[in-house]
Amino acid sequence: MSILVVGSVAYDTVETPFGRAERVLGGSASFFSVAASFFVPVNLVAVVGEDFGAEQMAAFAGRPIDTEGLEKTAGETFHWAGKYSYDLNARETLFTHLNVFEFFKPRIPERYRRSEHVFLGNIHPALQREVLDQVEKPRLVVCDTMNYWISRTPDELKETLRRVDVLLINDAEARELSGEWNMVRAARKIREMGPSVLVVKKGEHGVLMFGEEGSFAAPAYPLEEVFDPTGAGDTFAGGFMGYLAAGHGEAGVHRGKVDDAVLRRAVIMGSTLASFDVEAFSLDRLLRLTRAEIEERFRLFKRLTHFEGI
Amino acid sequence: MSILVVGSVAYDTVETPFGRAERVLGGSASFFSVAASFFVPVNLVAVVGEDFGAEQMAAFAGRPIDTEGLEKTAGETFHWAGKYSYDLNARETLFTHLNVFEFFKPRIPERYRRSEHVFLGNIHPALQREVLDQVEKPRLVVCDTMNYWISRTPDELKETLRRVDVLLINDAEARELSGEWNMVRAARKIREMGPSVLVVKKGEHGVLMFGEEGSFAAPAYPLEEVFDPTGAGDTFAGGFMGYLAAGHGEAGVHRGKVDDAVLRRAVIMGSTLASFDVEAFSLDRLLRLTRAEIEERFRLFKRLTHFEGI
Repeated sequence: MSILVVGSVAYDTVETPFGRAERVLGGSASFFSVAASFFVPVNLVAVVGEDFGAEQMAAFAGRPIDTEGLEKTAGETFHWAGKYSYDLNARETLFTHLNVFEFFKPRIPERYRRSEHVFLGNIHPALQREVLDQVEKPRLVVCDTMNYWISRTPDELKETLRRVDVLLINDAEARELSGEWNMVRAARKIREMGPSVLVVKKGEHGVLMFGEEGSFAAPAYPLEEVFDPTGAGDTFAGGFMGYLAAGHGEAGVHRGKVDDAVLRRAVIMGSTLASFDVEAFSLDRLLRLTRAEIEERFRLFKRLTHFEGI
Repeated sequence: MSILVVGSVAYDTVETPFGRAERVLGGSASFFSVAASFFVPVNLVAVVGEDFGAEQMAAFAGRPIDTEGLEKTAGETFHWAGKYSYDLNARETLFTHLNVFEFFKPRIPERYRRSEHVFLGNIHPALQREVLDQVEKPRLVVCDTMNYWISRTPDELKETLRRVDVLLINDAEARELSGEWNMVRAARKIREMGPSVLVVKKGEHGVLMFGEEGSFAAPAYPLEEVFDPTGAGDTFAGGFMGYLAAGHGEAGVHRGKVDDAVLRRAVIMGSTLASFDVEAFSLDRLLRLTRAEIEERFRLFKRLTHFEGI
């Protein structure tokens, strides 16, 4: 029941109205792996440069995260720098040094190839398919992407989407990918491209999920201190997929068909993990997070959204 | 258990990407009254000009809406014109002809003065207090306002807020009124100004309510066709307050203290009514709405948000 994740492991330099963090651990696969590792073992595939230190590697130690697939290669690690204003939903990229990530060709270690759950982080859609080609028989494929691939490689992306069960993107990306402003129509068009489930991330406004049994809306947890939103989407994905892969609840996961009640709890679990991520820079909060805290906040989500019928 | 509502009755001229409506019935008190009238009798106080016709008055007929307080005076009716782009959350005001509304002095008819529930629509905060002065013993005072009063008459507004139980405003207004970007802090500051409950309307992103027993988040209903958002906030208010005033459920309404479970259902009822309003221009959809449709969509809201605990 392990998850194979392919994505970026990076350095982030982040400025928010509340502080600044220089060259701290970031990258989609980092946030995803730590979040998912609360639920199931994670097989990590990414690339770093020679400057990637033991301090950063320590984040993955002591957790069920297999780093055999974390390739170290000549050059520098991917480094992203961004700045948030008070509106933490919007950010400005100061620079993106792809470095070794520019030539990343995911190579899936032999013992990862029987992973039943695959998370395709935000990389070139052709590379995402190459990952799938190296996995024997995935039961559940979850995919992220971004506006860059939607506008520059739409045909490649659509070919990938035919092999994806769950697509996780934000609202602007869903609109761009579908060409529809209205989210209900956008979801229908995107689900016709392949994914049976679409999860639309809306930052502080929560998540909308569209699946075979209708739609599900979940708020973001209203926090008094949102310190740094970096990684919230990837942390959501890790909590979401970790919960699914752990096979909780009723019917669990079948190829292309996930039980709706489990999907809903997985969305809340993703939102729960994401709500912790934003409380501190980098993975700082996730790395000191406990199972008890996760369960307590999940219960608070229930309290936050519950109402009785009339 | 009737509601006294004071606000505007107006002509709206609206352009959306889907069509145009010229000089149709609008105004906060119109939307509010029709929505609330599904639950309790409504006592309407507003002003119109000599050009306000029988066709418009027909909207209030055949419903428990008392129009004795709808004053007709020399001059023209308030006329607002606005234009929506595809992003239906944002709109451009083309013109605002206040006309007779500019000199509106709410005069509460004798038989309205024992109304136990008062909705103060978006008018000058000093006028809102004059309304309260004319009501004998209100059990529940709900208030709307807007950025115009927040920035121009902040002291007047704060004096009014001390007498308000529930404040309904949008997220930008909550930020401006509190001077806080973070909504949890904004809510705390605003609740210290008087209202024990703050309901923050976020358009397509739903509603956040902050009360004595914590917070409640409700999504907007994801509709495939959002035709015209005009009046959604006032319709929400009508459904919300109508449900409260009908005294549904457990403890019901006491001065300054409303049962949390009832408040939550009231938020969903407001969202339910608002989701119908946006399906057509003006009050067109509300005027052909049935009780069965309301109950069915309330159930769909439950389905939209429900998840089981872990």
